[in-house]
Order: sequence, then C-alpha cells, then structure tokens
Amino acid sequence: MYTTKEIQDIVNQKFSEINWAVEPLGLYAPIGYVLALGGKRLRPVLVLMAANLFAENLKPAINPAIGLEIFHNFTLLHDDIMDKAPVRRKQPTVHVKWNESTAILSGDAMLIKAYQYIAELLPDKLAAGLELFSHTALEVCEGQQYDMDFEQRSDVSINEYLEMIRLKTAVLLGAAVRLGALIGGADEENAKRLYNFGVNLGLAFQLKDDLLDVYGNAETFGKQTGGDILCNKKTFLLITALKNATPAQQKEFEYWLSPEGGKEPEKKIKAVTELYNQTNAKTACEAKMDEYFQLAIRKLAEVDLPNERKRNLFDLAEKLSYREV
Amino acid sequence: MYTTKEIQDIVNQKFSEINWAVEPLGLYAPIGYVLALGGKRLRPVLVLMAANLFAENLKPAINPAIGLEIFHNFTLLHDDIMDKAPVRRKQPTVHVKWNESTAILSGDAMLIKAYQYIAELLPDKLAAGLELFSHTALEVCEGQQYDMDFEQRSDVSINEYLEMIRLKTAVLLGAAVRLGALIGGADEENAKRLYNFGVNLGLAFQLKDDLLDVYGNAETFGKQTGGDILCNKKTFLLITALKNATPAQQKEFEYWLSPEGGKEPEKKIKAVTELYNQTNAKTACEAKMDEYFQLAIRKLAEVDLPNERKRNLFDLAEKLSYREV
Repeated sequence: MYTTKEIQDIVNQKFSEINWAVEPLGLYAPIGYVLALGGKRLRPVLVLMAANLFAENLKPAINPAIGLEIFHNFTLLHDDIMDKAPVRRKQPTVHVKWNESTAILSGDAMLIKAYQYIAELLPDKLAAGLELFSHTALEVCEGQQYDMDFEQRSDVSINEYLEMIRLKTAVLLGAAVRLGALIGGADEENAKRLYNFGVNLGLAFQLKDDLLDVYGNAETFGKQTGGDILCNKKTFLLITALKNATPAQQKEFEYWLSPEGGKEPEKKIKAVTELYNQTNAKTACEAKMDEYFQLAIRKLAEVDLPNERKRNLFDLAEKLSYREV
Repeated sequence: MYTTKEIQDIVNQKFSEINWAVEPLGLYAPIGYVLALGGKRLRPVLVLMAANLFAENLKPAINPAIGLEIFHNFTLLHDDIMDKAPVRRKQPTVHVKWNESTAILSGDAMLIKAYQYIAELLPDKLAAGLELFSHTALEVCEGQQYDMDFEQRSDVSINEYLEMIRLKTAVLLGAAVRLGALIGGADEENAKRLYNFGVNLGLAFQLKDDLLDVYGNAETFGKQTGGDILCNKKTFLLITALKNATPAQQKEFEYWLSPEGGKEPEKKIKAVTELYNQTNAKTACEAKMDEYFQLAIRKLAEVDLPNERKRNLFDLAEKLSYREV
C-alpha cells in the first residue's frame, strides 16, 4: 500500500505537469494561478487512498482525482466572486487580480476541464463515475444557494445549517472517497460505507473550520481569527449561541451584530467569542464535531477490510478533525 | 424520416416536460426562466436531424440534444453577465431580474445539468460524445475570451474575427450535427463532413446575424437595429469598413466611434450604415456569408446519402443563411 505522503506526492507531481500557459492566455492563465495557490489536495488524496484500499494499481484513479480537485477549485473561484472575497491563501482572488468576467469564464473552463479529467475513467466505470460526480456537483451548488439564502434570514436553525454544510462541503469529500472505491473495484456495500465515512468526515471538518476561525492560533492558522464573527456569518457557533442566549445575552448579540457593533472589530471579536463561551456554543460545537468524527470512524470500521489496510484513512480522519490549522 | 416540424415538436415537448420548480428554488427557477424564453432550439433540432439521416429511432438522441441546448443557454446566461446585457428576448436578464450571484450559480448548475443529459448517451457512444462536447465547450469559452480580448484592441483583423466567431458560435453547430451523426451510427468520414457542414453553416449564420443587426427590418427582426453600431462592436462589417476606408472615411469613423459621436445614437447608426455601404463592407459581408453557405452545402452534398434524405438539412441551411430575422 502507498503511504499518505507517497499519494500526496503523486497528486502534486501530476499537477505540476499540467501546462496552463496556452492560448488564449486570458482564459487559461487564471486556472494555473488558482491551482498554484496550493492547498492540501485533500480530495484527490482521498480518491487515491480509497482506491488503494481495493487495488494496488492507482493509475486509473489519478486523472479522475485531478478532475475532482479542479472542480473543487472552480467552486472556490466562483464562490469568491459571489462573496466578494479579496484574498485567498494570502493572494489576490482572480476577480481582483484580473476582473470579474475573467473569473466567471475561467471558472467555466475549469468545470469543463474537470469533466474531461473525470471522463478518463475506464469504460466500465464511466457512467457511474460521471453520475456520482454530476449529482455531487449539483448538491454543492445547492449548498451554496442555501448559504446565500441564509444571509437574508435571521431564523436559520441548527439542522438547516448542518444540511447546508453537508451539501456545500461534505458531499464532495464523500464523493471523493466513493469515487476512489468505485475505481478500485469495491462492492456497492463498501462503497456506500466509504461514502458515509467521507460525508461525516466532511461535516466534522467544516465544524472544525468554524471553531478554528474563532479559536484558532492566528500564527499557525495563517489568517486573522474572527473573520466569520466580523461578517455575522451564520455558523454553528452563532446559531447555537443565539439559541442558548439568555435575554441579557440576546441584547448583547443584538448590539454586536448591528452596524454600530461592527465599528470596532477587535472589540466585537472579543465580545462575541466570550458570548460563545458563556452560552456553551463552543462546547456544543466541539461535541457535534466529535459526534460526526465518531460516525465517520464507525463507517470506516464497517468497511470489509483488515484494520491495517484502513490505517492511513483512520489517521487522516483524526488529523483533519483535531487539527490546529 | 421525420419532418423538421415533427422534430421541433419533439424537442419542445421534451422541454415542456422538465420541472424546474424544485428546491432550492433560488437555484433552479432561473434555469426554468431562461429555458422558457424560447428560441428556435436550432442546436437540438440539428442533433435530431443529423441522427435521422442514419437512423429511424431518435430516442437515443433526445436527451443529448436537450443537453446541448441547456449548454447553449448556459453560455447566453453567463455571457449576458459579462456583457452587462439588460435584456434577452425582450425579457430582463437573470442578473437583472434576480442578481449577479444567482446568474453565476444557476449558470453553473445549468452546465452540470447539460452534462447529465449528454451522459444519457448509450455506453458505446458515451466516451466519444463526451469528448466531442467537452472539446467544443472549451472552444466556445475560448471564443468568448477572444471576443473580450478584442474589445481592448483596435487592430483586429478579418481573419482573427472569423476565427473568434468560429470558436464562439460555429463549432457548437458543428458539434450538434456531429453528435447526431455519431448517435445515428454514421461512419467517421460522414461524421466529419457533417461537422464541417455545421461549422460553415454556423459561420454563415453569424455573418447573417451581423448583417441583420444593421440592415434587418426592425419589425420582423424583433429588436432595434444598430445595436452593434452603437457599442462599436467589432463585427465583420466594421472591420472591413475600416480596412477599406479612404482617409476621408477614416476621419468620419474616428468621429462616430468616439464618445462625442455616440451622443446622438440615431445619427450615428445612419452615418455608420452609410459608411458600410460606401466602403463595400455590406457587399463583402454578404459575399463572405454566401461563401460559407456554399462551403456548407458542398460538405452536406459530400455526405454519402441520397439527396432526398438530406433535403430537410439543405432547406434548413438555406433558411438560416437567407433569413430576414
């Protein structure tokens, strides 16, 4: 079996080999720029790790894995336009570095390229792999739609929030694992268990993201903490805090969430973080995250293979859920 | 064989059956809105007509044909954002009726849906059909990129312009015909001839579009003439006129293309139209259009089938190239 590091190297090597400096440059250069921003390449790594559970030859999984990562980066590119985000990974976003039309069009080209890479699936896996990908891609769009809808509402429930992050973030991790299993030759039962492992891991991963944004160490995290707080993002923490808040705490929240409360960012972050602590939102979020992590682990344990074979995936799941960054 | 009318009915019936009123509505309702704007459904009609040249059973061609039309409408949706177009077919564009984020995201969902419909191809045609579609979809993006690049240049040549419209518009018509041929069971030679028929027809079609925008009858055309003139769009007419212009005529153009010249729209349209006549741009455009039409007809004639079988396609090609609207 390949180590996780060997798989990461295979993925990174493959990306470094793609030449995006082709005409028209205005279309393809931004794609190279986005992919060069780096990242953990979590999704293609999951594809290969899952394939490796069932097969030694990872070749059939490589291009489809690349396709999934190109798709993921396409969603980030378009999301950044919709969110009006100025930076990503400390670099200017494409609509800032170039312009909005470029960001839209290069994103469209990325989605098409993603399909080209996924269509490299061998004939016996092609139809099923495509349907898994298309179905998942639509769910990601649905998640983004709900995320945008929620900005206009003040009554978003915890369950609605969890469903939104399931669609927006988690299903893609599930699809990555399931795609790898499909390519490796897993039977339907194991493929389903692995899908559920991936989705639950994704939910834990996103809740960890919500926590790190507030409680992360600014140095290791690589970006200013409190970003979600400043833009009143309806995270698990905020929704839970509002639900648990006493009348006095609700009044405090009303102030900090108002335009007036946004005038002193550092004070706002400090105050809201303290409210998250007092209302047990932090504790609840950590508990929920742990619940999904445990669910993920259970699903992986149910997969019909010796534990040694699943060791790398168990380790990766733990690393993602209990990371500091 | 099916008549063109019967094929149009099959396509329209299929579109009327799709339900876009599903959650989240913010994502899917705009798709239904765009598709309900109507249109000739030229591309899916070409798919079915081409399939019908080789096969009586059109069922395998229907969903792929629908997919191509969804793709075409996706490009219009995103192009309208990039062009900041306020209306399409006399209705507000999606980014105006809803907002820009919706237009981006619903467009993304349309592209995915297009792939889902095309992936309905039977297993023996799936890989080839997907590659034809993906390759063509990228070319359309490239054409749009060149179109945007050209806005910043004053030295665009006729050949560059023709290559841009080949990518932006013509290759999709070629792909529609070729996809139908593939599904119907055509051999590679005939499939290629039909592709070239479609591409050349597409070039004639776009040049006709350029002519109608200036010389079309406002009532039958359905929209104000002169739109391209008003926004200094680098069409075949403008590029040719500038190339042929005498020094005196060049001076006139300098004025009308400047901000000063744009202050009286009706005068500008009248003056530039007259310059197109005087510089023989109109004549040259009509000649070029006819050249591509003849090329298209020749390619269709080379297809290894009795003329009666190709009659409907010959008629459609003629109708598109010599239309008044």
